[in-house]
Amino acid sequence: MEEVEEEVKRIVEQVKELHDSSTSFVSSSSQEELSLRNRASVVDSSIRRLHSTLASDKHLDPKLFEKLEEDLQRAKCMLADGDTSSFLPSKPQGRFVRMFLGPVNVRASRKDIQLKVKEEYNSYRDRTALLFLVFPAILLTLRSYVWDGCLPAFPVQLYQAWLLFLYAGLVMRENILRANGSDIRSWWIYHHYFAMAMSLVSLTWEIKGQPNCVQKQKGVRLFLQWAMMQGVAMLLQNRYQRQRLYTRIALGKAKRMDVVWGETAGVDGQLLLLFPILFTLQGFEAYVGLQLLRTVLTGVVAEWQVLVCGILLVVMAIGNFTNTVETLMVKSRFKAKMKRSKSRAELD
Amino acid sequence: MEEVEEEVKRIVEQVKELHDSSTSFVSSSSQEELSLRNRASVVDSSIRRLHSTLASDKHLDPKLFEKLEEDLQRAKCMLADGDTSSFLPSKPQGRFVRMFLGPVNVRASRKDIQLKVKEEYNSYRDRTALLFLVFPAILLTLRSYVWDGCLPAFPVQLYQAWLLFLYAGLVMRENILRANGSDIRSWWIYHHYFAMAMSLVSLTWEIKGQPNCVQKQKGVRLFLQWAMMQGVAMLLQNRYQRQRLYTRIALGKAKRMDVVWGETAGVDGQLLLLFPILFTLQGFEAYVGLQLLRTVLTGVVAEWQVLVCGILLVVMAIGNFTNTVETLMVKSRFKAKMKRSKSRAELD
Repeated sequence: MEEVEEEVKRIVEQVKELHDSSTSFVSSSSQEELSLRNRASVVDSSIRRLHSTLASDKHLDPKLFEKLEEDLQRAKCMLADGDTSSFLPSKPQGRFVRMFLGPVNVRASRKDIQLKVKEEYNSYRDRTALLFLVFPAILLTLRSYVWDGCLPAFPVQLYQAWLLFLYAGLVMRENILRANGSDIRSWWIYHHYFAMAMSLVSLTWEIKGQPNCVQKQKGVRLFLQWAMMQGVAMLLQNRYQRQRLYTRIALGKAKRMDVVWGETAGVDGQLLLLFPILFTLQGFEAYVGLQLLRTVLTGVVAEWQVLVCGILLVVMAIGNFTNTVETLMVKSRFKAKMKRSKSRAELD
Repeated sequence: MEEVEEEVKRIVEQVKELHDSSTSFVSSSSQEELSLRNRASVVDSSIRRLHSTLASDKHLDPKLFEKLEEDLQRAKCMLADGDTSSFLPSKPQGRFVRMFLGPVNVRASRKDIQLKVKEEYNSYRDRTALLFLVFPAILLTLRSYVWDGCLPAFPVQLYQAWLLFLYAGLVMRENILRANGSDIRSWWIYHHYFAMAMSLVSLTWEIKGQPNCVQKQKGVRLFLQWAMMQGVAMLLQNRYQRQRLYTRIALGKAKRMDVVWGETAGVDGQLLLLFPILFTLQGFEAYVGLQLLRTVLTGVVAEWQVLVCGILLVVMAIGNFTNTVETLMVKSRFKAKMKRSKSRAELD
């Protein structure tokens, strides 16, 4: 009897000690964290300020300007890549994340976890791209060889439900990446909100069968073909993005949390392949959207879902196109600037 | 010119210093955290072990047994309620959370944030319950007075889409609460997975109109009525749960992260009101499910969606009933035990 009593006493003692050390650790570390946060935010805004001072100063020696710009860039990378990154002021968490998760903090406190999040996002996209290619391919093959040219509703709806969850996951992860300091363009997040809306709407869209199946299912067929092309493009982009990101990290130019949705940027060799594919894809996206709108306007189908999907596809195509062109322009401006400063340096 | 150069130098210096302090802080604090984690896990398992030793020891003096049990309980509360809670071994994050968020950590590192998560979950449920009541009520009212007894498809589908997002949010938050140490019964999480599946399936279920609207829409109508009852029950439960939780916290009996889905437990006064409502609700849930199954079996409708929704409703009703009864039994056993030990103490 005595023995058990002793043991309980000992445990209660231990719990008290542990409680005290936890409390003191939490309070001291949160104080230190706060001070690091303050320092980081001061340094961060100083760098920003200096950057704009440099840019507006026209009388600066070009060589010195180059050097100072490079110093600042390197300092920025040190902040964003090292352990300081978790103390930098962060963008507020998106509404979408708050809606689903509540006030929980999705910001990783350590750099290695942040990078794990980024890596996992990349591999999620890889897995996704493969399914993007395979799923509609199977549907279209079965349609031709088994289903006599007429898709049954259930597998198509299964595919649409899968798309809904897929896009919800992508949007969630992109919001989380953003909160962790990635500079992903907001358009690619909006793009996925639109895509989510489209798969939700298409779930309520009745897949009609015989008679006249070929005509009634034209929209669905076009959509599936577009999805397959999307899969191929995604696979190419992922390969290309990773290579480029690793190259840039090796050159010390990119912060490692950068995500560039493949649609937007390129290494010269692969660009020759990638950009034509991207523009074709965007053209086809707009074409599918316009076809859907046409079926509504000519009165072949009268469902609101077809109208909404058509509009969404056209909007996405335009947005994708604009953003790709913008990125291309930023890229070529950057290159021109690089060339100019190089030749200037050579003249000197 | 000189001035700018000076300033850049100073900033680069500052960045280096900040980088070094961040690195040393991160490494020292993560070491300390690890040691606290180890101590917490040792103490936690000791308490568990002692608990079972006490329970199996038949020769112990009942008074001493009471006292030791109480000591252990209080130690447990101290661990779970204080700053130590974030160092206790946690349940692994659910598959659902990992699927949507990737490897990000949803565990709050500080107790005050954990409690904020909990509070927000409660207020989310409050808001939800109100909409649960109002949304179907509006649909049913409009149906009678505006739509001539025949629901149009769009508002019903809007409602179903809302349900899908609502349940996804609830499931996400419950998984997060669990990762933060709440002891929510797993059935209530499963229940929300089933409910999610049902709203997804019902989105693909075509809402048919005239002719014969009343007969075709009987399932939808029953479902909306059930949802309204659900809303009332949720509002009652939320009120009751909060009261009970605050009482228990005040008595030092409950860890503050506990969530008890209202369907499961009660303060005697309100129980007389709550349990009949819960059982009625479950009965009605099963009735709606069986009605749906009957419409399939008698051939009134032949859609697979109706069959699946019917089965899901019956499964949910049975699960809810079993879990409510189980909780009632645990409760009465606990009360009986309390009475026994009290009367024993009085005899002594």
